[in-house]
Amino acid sequence: MADRFVPHFQEELQQLKTRLLEMGGLAEDRVSSAVQALVERDAAMVDRVLAGDGPINQLHIEIDSRCFKLLALYQPMAVDLRGIVAGVKINTDLERVGDLAINIAEAVKRSMRHSPVQELIDIPRMADIAQRMLRNALDAYVRRDTELAQAVLDEDDALDALKTQVFRELLTCMLEDPATIEPALDLILISRHLERIGDHATNIAEDVIFMVSARDVRHHAREA
Amino acid sequence: MADRFVPHFQEELQQLKTRLLEMGGLAEDRVSSAVQALVERDAAMVDRVLAGDGPINQLHIEIDSRCFKLLALYQPMAVDLRGIVAGVKINTDLERVGDLAINIAEAVKRSMRHSPVQELIDIPRMADIAQRMLRNALDAYVRRDTELAQAVLDEDDALDALKTQVFRELLTCMLEDPATIEPALDLILISRHLERIGDHATNIAEDVIFMVSARDVRHHAREA
Repeated sequence: MADRFVPHFQEELQQLKTRLLEMGGLAEDRVSSAVQALVERDAAMVDRVLAGDGPINQLHIEIDSRCFKLLALYQPMAVDLRGIVAGVKINTDLERVGDLAINIAEAVKRSMRHSPVQELIDIPRMADIAQRMLRNALDAYVRRDTELAQAVLDEDDALDALKTQVFRELLTCMLEDPATIEPALDLILISRHLERIGDHATNIAEDVIFMVSARDVRHHAREA
Repeated sequence: MADRFVPHFQEELQQLKTRLLEMGGLAEDRVSSAVQALVERDAAMVDRVLAGDGPINQLHIEIDSRCFKLLALYQPMAVDLRGIVAGVKINTDLERVGDLAINIAEAVKRSMRHSPVQELIDIPRMADIAQRMLRNALDAYVRRDTELAQAVLDEDDALDALKTQVFRELLTCMLEDPATIEPALDLILISRHLERIGDHATNIAEDVIFMVSARDVRHHAREA
């Protein structure tokens, strides 16, 4: 990369990071609203989540085009190259998280046609963990912090354990009282969507470790 | 890109495409085996799927490293740049399809503890559509064929309609006979995994259209 380009490159890289954090914030808000709508049985909030994916979709396109511009114009190498390609992938992950907020809102809408199944304690807990994983994964990207990225990977087990517990509890409800089958099914689907949000955070954390260290932890992490 | 590099570049790009097709073939085989194990209630086949993700994981790492090598060494522009970044993303999609084959196999294993719920006609049909979408999306990538990519996007509605139908039929089973609740739940999860395989094929098709035309169809396609 020619030296005269370097200040612009660093500035544009900084802007890319800022935009990714902004997109992460939007995605997190949408998940948080969808789960709050479930807890409070708030139909208006469900509708706002269902109708509100415009800003995130716009950012998705803008961030992709920033990444391609950075690649084409500055021809970065090593950690910068890996960081920008990671940016393209993280952008995709965040857009999917936004889509999952819609899937959650759709399930909330269906489930509200029935009486509440049971206390929802564990689903909001799953949402809290998934959102924290997402936030930490993005912070790890911005700060190139592999320790924080590793902490995200470690937290995935807690989310997985809660998912299994939610599944078992809801299955018991369904078996004991068939009137709960429909709303319990939607709660199971919601817990799966939250699990997938954790998976996206995990993807981002793995990309951060690869970006910083050029070490591919993906399949070792999964085998551990 | 310096002219003396061009023949090597084209050759390496060709190798990248070949490896992606190979990975697509492996992912498709794994999905196909998992669904065949469901149809035939074949426990040995389930175990082969559960234990068999080594080759796909190895290819995943190899393809990623090919893509980064191509980006760093040849500093490609325009359609070639977009094609290699698409390669990174497609590689991720295919690895996830491999993971979904494991998720299906896990659900098949659980469901085999119960008597069969009903004829499975629609789940194998969903699997056929998802696998065809995946194959066509990869062919579209290799041939830079936007028409074929568009056909993949169009086919997603059929998969979605089948998913809704499977859900409705299984819900009816569960309501009529609570003894079917557990295995029917697993069939619902399997149909969701197949839907997600279709989503990955859709991602690939969208990347192909962007690669060839630099036109971002993603959010328009979804709004259509």
